[in-house]
Amino acid sequence: MKKLLVSTWPFGEANHFPFEMLKSNGISFVTNPWRRKMTEKELEKIIPDYDGLIAGTEPITAKVLARAVRLKHISRVGVGLDNVNLSEARKRGIMVSYTPDAPAPAVAELTVGLMISLLRNIHVSNLEMHLGNWNRYFGKRLAEITLGIIGVGRIGARVLRRVAAFGTPRILVNDVMPNLELNREFKLEWVSKKTIFQQADLISLHVPLTPKTRYMVNTKELGWMKEGSVLINTSRGGVVNENALYKSLKLGRIGGAAIDVFEKEPYQGPLCRLKNCLLTSHMGSMSLDCRTRMEIEATEEAIRFLQGKALLSQVPPEEYSIQAEK
Amino acid sequence: MKKLLVSTWPFGEANHFPFEMLKSNGISFVTNPWRRKMTEKELEKIIPDYDGLIAGTEPITAKVLARAVRLKHISRVGVGLDNVNLSEARKRGIMVSYTPDAPAPAVAELTVGLMISLLRNIHVSNLEMHLGNWNRYFGKRLAEITLGIIGVGRIGARVLRRVAAFGTPRILVNDVMPNLELNREFKLEWVSKKTIFQQADLISLHVPLTPKTRYMVNTKELGWMKEGSVLINTSRGGVVNENALYKSLKLGRIGGAAIDVFEKEPYQGPLCRLKNCLLTSHMGSMSLDCRTRMEIEATEEAIRFLQGKALLSQVPPEEYSIQAEK
Repeated sequence: MKKLLVSTWPFGEANHFPFEMLKSNGISFVTNPWRRKMTEKELEKIIPDYDGLIAGTEPITAKVLARAVRLKHISRVGVGLDNVNLSEARKRGIMVSYTPDAPAPAVAELTVGLMISLLRNIHVSNLEMHLGNWNRYFGKRLAEITLGIIGVGRIGARVLRRVAAFGTPRILVNDVMPNLELNREFKLEWVSKKTIFQQADLISLHVPLTPKTRYMVNTKELGWMKEGSVLINTSRGGVVNENALYKSLKLGRIGGAAIDVFEKEPYQGPLCRLKNCLLTSHMGSMSLDCRTRMEIEATEEAIRFLQGKALLSQVPPEEYSIQAEK
Repeated sequence: MKKLLVSTWPFGEANHFPFEMLKSNGISFVTNPWRRKMTEKELEKIIPDYDGLIAGTEPITAKVLARAVRLKHISRVGVGLDNVNLSEARKRGIMVSYTPDAPAPAVAELTVGLMISLLRNIHVSNLEMHLGNWNRYFGKRLAEITLGIIGVGRIGARVLRRVAAFGTPRILVNDVMPNLELNREFKLEWVSKKTIFQQADLISLHVPLTPKTRYMVNTKELGWMKEGSVLINTSRGGVVNENALYKSLKLGRIGGAAIDVFEKEPYQGPLCRLKNCLLTSHMGSMSLDCRTRMEIEATEEAIRFLQGKALLSQVPPEEYSIQAEK
């Protein structure tokens, strides 16, 4: 009998329906015994027994795949593929599917919340008030700033739609290709990344983690940023060099940052010591509705595959080529 | 020579233009020597010397006004009038003007930021991360909830306009009178306050502090609220009974609260000990542009009065009658 491993965590917590789906389809499955993000070593150890995998952001490396002798399908709960060695999977005939649309609304909404928090110092005031200190901080409204968005795909575009209601006067955007549909909807300035770093008061990153985007925000780019400007990363750890960001925040070169994703998660690094760094624990997609939708879609794909049916949302070829470009 | 007291704090900090206006018009003025919100006693002590007052939220009581022998005009920086004894001012022939529109966009935007923070547990995760704890919290999107807004005047209506971009499916509203213009713009359900307390997942208060709204949210109303629902107060301290709120949050009866305004400010009470209470230090109007606009408008009125010109934004008669209704 075929066996499924659910390595992602949490899973089926807020809504138990994915478990019901697996049970009612007679699928034999095991959930993540560590109840936290698995390491490469842990995954290597248990992967050989399984035919299917419902995966989160744990490292599905060449080493792990070399041990995955029975594995034929990886169903990613979410959209990022940086943790999956796609070419290695292809070499071994392992199919990969994902849930590209489900997390976008939740990530976009969290991003807008982080924007307002950063611009108005909500997070700083809350930390201070909980220490018994009353300090009134001045802030800026979205209607006063130049906003820069790097990456206007599924998530970046949704951020734009929500920000539009706040009357931001100048929006700078950058992506691999300009999106003409967005151009009809909003007054956008398509500019270079360098221009965004130099001119935006708030920069939000919505790019996948690929060899080309690794450390896209490093000492040089942070140096280009305006004094007092702020940075948001709800995309992937690794897009921002955390050490460089720490230095820039510590010196007060930039005004603040909101970071939801980290190179190594769970994160407990030096950014935790900075009041001007708003930190959340990879919660972009953690809204009840989006998380449930992601888990259900990924579970459907896993069941489909184990029952010999065709996959509905296989990872497209361009994702393989993006990852291969080094 | 006529003399002006600027009792509000901060003033002219982010933008020095109000000082330039006073100087270039040859106005003799003194700023708040305590550099924080003044007490009734402090105001009583210094008020007798002044002909004009640029005021914040410090208590301008009957006692203070009894000592204000030269005072002929109070220019409020902001919109709330709960701190000014209007009937006593009228009795003594003291005119009162205010800046009703200036703070609204900043308060509305802060409110939306607090909404997303509460719904997604941004503030809790940030506190935890700064203690070195990685806990991923599930949240809800604005598109999943029933929103309740009590008070849809200048600020409440602006909150609605911004929330509209997030696709909230059900919006319950309450006010003294329904606003038909808003009805054309949004799909609103005009209901009783009790219905809002019982059915909304998130309740935001946008009412003035009057005898009728004092302790509008007390033990009874908090008891009506759904388990896990959340409350936002960016209007005035005194609208919510802080002790009752503390108990409800402490027991986990309601899911959380975001409080920007307090009965006694600076606030250092028991809510500071609760992680599920997001606290900011009366920062609703503290965006650079709105604060500047408020200060400039209030300064203009003060100058106009001292130069014997007609006031442009005198407090309308209905504000006097609202305050008189006990």
